[in-house]
Amino acid sequence: MSSINNIDVFFSAQSFQENELRNKSVVVIDVLRATSTIVTALMNGAKGVIPVEDMGEASRISQSVDSDNYLLCGEKDGTKIDGYDLGNSPLEYSRDTVEGKTLIFNTTNGTKAIKKSLGSATIYIASFLNLSSIVNALSVEKNEIVLLCAGWKGRLALEDMLLAGNIIHNLSGGSLSDMANDGAKVAFGLYEKYGNDISSVIFQSNHAQRLKQIVGTDDLEYCAQTDICNLLPVLHEGIISI
Amino acid sequence: MSSINNIDVFFSAQSFQENELRNKSVVVIDVLRATSTIVTALMNGAKGVIPVEDMGEASRISQSVDSDNYLLCGEKDGTKIDGYDLGNSPLEYSRDTVEGKTLIFNTTNGTKAIKKSLGSATIYIASFLNLSSIVNALSVEKNEIVLLCAGWKGRLALEDMLLAGNIIHNLSGGSLSDMANDGAKVAFGLYEKYGNDISSVIFQSNHAQRLKQIVGTDDLEYCAQTDICNLLPVLHEGIISI
Repeated sequence: MSSINNIDVFFSAQSFQENELRNKSVVVIDVLRATSTIVTALMNGAKGVIPVEDMGEASRISQSVDSDNYLLCGEKDGTKIDGYDLGNSPLEYSRDTVEGKTLIFNTTNGTKAIKKSLGSATIYIASFLNLSSIVNALSVEKNEIVLLCAGWKGRLALEDMLLAGNIIHNLSGGSLSDMANDGAKVAFGLYEKYGNDISSVIFQSNHAQRLKQIVGTDDLEYCAQTDICNLLPVLHEGIISI
Repeated sequence: MSSINNIDVFFSAQSFQENELRNKSVVVIDVLRATSTIVTALMNGAKGVIPVEDMGEASRISQSVDSDNYLLCGEKDGTKIDGYDLGNSPLEYSRDTVEGKTLIFNTTNGTKAIKKSLGSATIYIASFLNLSSIVNALSVEKNEIVLLCAGWKGRLALEDMLLAGNIIHNLSGGSLSDMANDGAKVAFGLYEKYGNDISSVIFQSNHAQRLKQIVGTDDLEYCAQTDICNLLPVLHEGIISI
């Protein structure tokens, strides 16, 4: 990596303009749950994931493809969309269900962040589940890096910032330069304070409080796991694959 | 204050919807430089400050008032606006210049944050310069509290988050509950990491790097001072006063 000072953290999909990502490598983070679910789907043999911005785009794509090979997936405000094959719980994306399939994927915040990054040089998909693969890729990245936290409706999400801080902590060897960017310092400070018990911190986050009421705690426990796979999902020509 | 868990931090004026502030008390923070300048103007005897959203609104108001008693003030992207009496440097707002005057005040991020808060219950103006007055007021506040960092064009600004963290650190006695809001934890973590040398952290912020090139370092040194006055500016019927 050129320099730890060339890494920044954006804390929501609404917090920047597309042109701020030009020529940069972007790491999209939506721990609860979009990027954790994408990583899980690819780990379990999905051929690829097509992120879409809204139900209209999902519907247009699904009508033009062979339904045997595609699944329509996603959620709106935490709940599976009527008529979709799958929601946004990573636990639904078992090998039996997704192997060999291409997924059309539409979520409240995560896929919006991905779509808004399309003008960047590279788009990686990060979660705690594939943390080390991301850190390894970034450690040899030549471009400037933006860790793009999806957040929640414009607000920051603690679990996303915590993963961003974890990545920066790894890349910096635990000691961040005074000349690092504002966003990097904020994420790093958060990780230093709360990084020793990731699972508890995720459970206590505002997003987790909302999700618990909708889908229970199984997804939270799952998404809080670190390094259960060694995958580097990258977006190429509109499809995320490994 | 009802509970430290009823305090949240919004990290830019673009990161929320107006209705999220309803019935709450909002503390607007724009350390570099809008809120530091407003506090300074009031400290030096300005009668009041009318925050306006853009040059159009500033112009409309200025045409309807007696120019002997009003000053047209503000900046666009760090630079004084052509034809205005004053820019956004707090050092311009001396007693000789502002005493007894009402200021029509228009800045890039700070006044936008104030205007977007108009539907809230109360609006306080905070800077490091009047930190203790803000902490004292919030310690007996009955409403839920939002510390609204103005940020910079949608991005977070380190110096604003640091002041938010400083306020929360004071209100919580240095020990934040696990059930605090995401934004409160992020600001608190930042303050724990970087709070022991506020001036250096402000000097190293992204915003300071930009400002140094436009206006030098005098404003930075000034805005990094803590508790130079004991003032609680509040917005009432469109005018900020003490």
